[in-house]
Amino acid sequence: MSAQESYNELTRICREVALIYSSYAVLSWDQHTYMPPAGISFRAEQLGMLSSTGHKKFTDPKVGDLLSNLEQSDLAKGDTPESANIRELRHAYDKQTKLPTELVEEITKTTSMAHEAWAKARKESDFSQFEPWLAKVINLMQQKADAYGFEGERYNALLDDYETGATVTDVENVFASLRDELVTLLQKIKDAPKQPDKSIVERPYDVKLQEIFGKSVALAMGFDFDSGRLDITTHPFCTGIGIGDTRILTRYNPNRLNDALFGTMHEAGHGLYEMGLPKDKYFGLPMSQSISLGIHESQSRMWENQVGRSKPFWEYFFPQAQRLFRDSLGSVTLDEFYGAINDVRPSYIRVEADEATYNLHILLRFEMERALLNGDLKPADVPGEWNSRFKKYFGIEVDKDSNGCLQDVHWSAGLVGYFPTYTLGNLYSAQFFNQADKELDDLEGQFRRGEYLGLREWLREKIHQHGQRYRANDLCKRITGSGLDHKPLVTYMNKKYGDIYGF
Amino acid sequence: MSAQESYNELTRICREVALIYSSYAVLSWDQHTYMPPAGISFRAEQLGMLSSTGHKKFTDPKVGDLLSNLEQSDLAKGDTPESANIRELRHAYDKQTKLPTELVEEITKTTSMAHEAWAKARKESDFSQFEPWLAKVINLMQQKADAYGFEGERYNALLDDYETGATVTDVENVFASLRDELVTLLQKIKDAPKQPDKSIVERPYDVKLQEIFGKSVALAMGFDFDSGRLDITTHPFCTGIGIGDTRILTRYNPNRLNDALFGTMHEAGHGLYEMGLPKDKYFGLPMSQSISLGIHESQSRMWENQVGRSKPFWEYFFPQAQRLFRDSLGSVTLDEFYGAINDVRPSYIRVEADEATYNLHILLRFEMERALLNGDLKPADVPGEWNSRFKKYFGIEVDKDSNGCLQDVHWSAGLVGYFPTYTLGNLYSAQFFNQADKELDDLEGQFRRGEYLGLREWLREKIHQHGQRYRANDLCKRITGSGLDHKPLVTYMNKKYGDIYGF
Repeated sequence: MSAQESYNELTRICREVALIYSSYAVLSWDQHTYMPPAGISFRAEQLGMLSSTGHKKFTDPKVGDLLSNLEQSDLAKGDTPESANIRELRHAYDKQTKLPTELVEEITKTTSMAHEAWAKARKESDFSQFEPWLAKVINLMQQKADAYGFEGERYNALLDDYETGATVTDVENVFASLRDELVTLLQKIKDAPKQPDKSIVERPYDVKLQEIFGKSVALAMGFDFDSGRLDITTHPFCTGIGIGDTRILTRYNPNRLNDALFGTMHEAGHGLYEMGLPKDKYFGLPMSQSISLGIHESQSRMWENQVGRSKPFWEYFFPQAQRLFRDSLGSVTLDEFYGAINDVRPSYIRVEADEATYNLHILLRFEMERALLNGDLKPADVPGEWNSRFKKYFGIEVDKDSNGCLQDVHWSAGLVGYFPTYTLGNLYSAQFFNQADKELDDLEGQFRRGEYLGLREWLREKIHQHGQRYRANDLCKRITGSGLDHKPLVTYMNKKYGDIYGF
Repeated sequence: MSAQESYNELTRICREVALIYSSYAVLSWDQHTYMPPAGISFRAEQLGMLSSTGHKKFTDPKVGDLLSNLEQSDLAKGDTPESANIRELRHAYDKQTKLPTELVEEITKTTSMAHEAWAKARKESDFSQFEPWLAKVINLMQQKADAYGFEGERYNALLDDYETGATVTDVENVFASLRDELVTLLQKIKDAPKQPDKSIVERPYDVKLQEIFGKSVALAMGFDFDSGRLDITTHPFCTGIGIGDTRILTRYNPNRLNDALFGTMHEAGHGLYEMGLPKDKYFGLPMSQSISLGIHESQSRMWENQVGRSKPFWEYFFPQAQRLFRDSLGSVTLDEFYGAINDVRPSYIRVEADEATYNLHILLRFEMERALLNGDLKPADVPGEWNSRFKKYFGIEVDKDSNGCLQDVHWSAGLVGYFPTYTLGNLYSAQFFNQADKELDDLEGQFRRGEYLGLREWLREKIHQHGQRYRANDLCKRITGSGLDHKPLVTYMNKKYGDIYGF
């Protein structure tokens, strides 16, 4: 078989695998939107079947053989789409074949029970119920890292699942610098002379009108409703099902504007990435897939924050919002509104955090899960350690574990190494936006005129169209001239909050 | 491997196959409801992948070997769920393995092009464009029948795809008698002294209110919205996705009540059958599946016609309808309304036909497709033959082929042998309802009081819970004491229309 024939055969298999996983995505979307309640157990069985069918197809030794042949060929050389596909398929194949079936089953079984224990522990704010399960999960995660193999510390092996190629070494200094800057920023905000009136966005906002507004914004961003949808769900997400089919989901709070508005922009940002990936050409191959959770999050966060929480954006959209929500916004000024959507204050719960404190929540989790995995922190000591760090970073005392170390689902679900991608997304978004602002003509002016396609095209050209051709840090270097860096985000925040809070 | 072990292994494989097909069902439902328009080609590829994955899994020689082992064992003996599963799996396995791959591909390719040619021919009412494609399809259907093998005539092999075990010999006399009775009935109706005012149901009916009414009726019928849904689509259907998940779809006409109302009852009738099948116990096996299209249709037609177009039903629901649709029904009497929903008149289009003329449309198609397959009718002669039969049965001249032999999608799609199942459904529904009426206490009284669960329970006990344990004709004998029979339907119609039309 010639190299080209091997490549074609590999492409065919990967497309089949991806068709199965894309069917999984439809069923999963359906589960979170329209599935009748009684269908839940059956749905789990369907998803399990699709997942194991896809896994079996992809981990077939034939795939490994094809890859080995190709790695010896010219197709694996140089900076080409083909070589990127071979490189990333090898990476995925090795990871998927390295875990012993018994370990995978053990993880599935344990996390399923750990999740139940966690839910009960959180409800009763009683860490002791979760502690033994956390210990088991951490132990399994250590085994998982060992099965994968790693350089440096175990955490690298897990982080790679969500952020291919990233290592602790790459991120720890950036994260630590960011943390220190944020603690300082928070103190400045706390002491600032001006304080926004947050209550403006906590008034009645008709849900039907919120939906119209959210869709208008998504449309202006360039979200293509001919090949996409916006639906309602409990935990918003975006799913790129396949060619011509990208779906985003949001939720509406009748008494708060932010949830659905910024939630929709966030998911639409993910959606634009999915829509911009070259799926027509490469569906099933890494070249049609997003790079990492961090890069995905950089897209959603940029649209949510750098665009959606910017003053120029609202210079265009605020008059429309005022006409729609006359009772709540009729007598509010643009500056008051801009302040209200950018209100910052320390709070216990990550998912409700504002743009400035959000990363502190993440950094705390990153530091703790890394210590847990390395054995430097014992599961029993988690609440104490959490609370003392929280006090140091946020300046407030955690009142109970359900507002502290029990709030997140991730550890109980075996998602160790996932948290950092949120902050990576925020860092990259600031770096990319900074660069776009340099390269595009009067970006603020465009926003003021309601023009967002310029930014979308820039993102398409620089990021979306490349699929997994480059890994996150390399892509960042290609685009901005430097790798991961905390300064653009810090500069952006200091300027923005300085204006709003008057420091 | 013991017989029981073989049986367990076969059960396991069949469940996997069914999980794949049930995923197909979710994607297909999604395609007809919420999928973004641009996703259509990709969806076809997903469905093709799921379908070939399921087919490959089921036609694995291992399944044939397991069946052969089981057929030698005690599990295949007697009237038990196990023996029924073995019998019907063998039947399905043989059919699915008998068609050569090339023939299947040729059918797929040809019908895809034939469908396009048909759509254009119908639009332009020009049979000559479709004729060569009809010839090709009929030729392929003959090859298909030959590949299956058959006793008697080829048509039997195709009919069996939709109505397992049914043969032309079983149905031809019943169908011919029914046809003659219907022609006589139509003449009586035409000459009748009283004629209902059909315009009553052709007034404005608010779509939102139609939806509320349709859901109320489905709920009263026992359709379980905790494990089911009602959505909107272009061509209404019902899909039994799996355990706890049955979905029905309807469409609303703002200027006619019948479409959505009887459409919803029809699909809810299918839905009750799906909900009543013992899927919890036998999912994936024939014991959890419907017997045939004819039996499925008997359920939908019973709820639509014997229940939904009955006077006692409206004695309960008409006052509610009047309150909902005050402008259109406020000054209408129950008798006038009852007449309007039962208006009968010859018309060209099958899918718009009333209860009485509907079967004549089917019988004409059955006779013609049988003659085409046997070579007694040439494709070129289809329009002439259609029109002359139509004149004989309906008493009116077909004005153009788009109102005649070009109206239905079936032949272009290779669905030859499908049409009879509609009339089988109507015949069985009358036979079953007749029996239910004998066995249940004051069924009319129950309807008058808005009680429909008695009938649903009877259908569950007699039909739904048995899955494919018995074939259609045998089931009918077990329940009513006789096989397929035209008399109950004829008696029912003569009585009903005699009352309404005064003959």
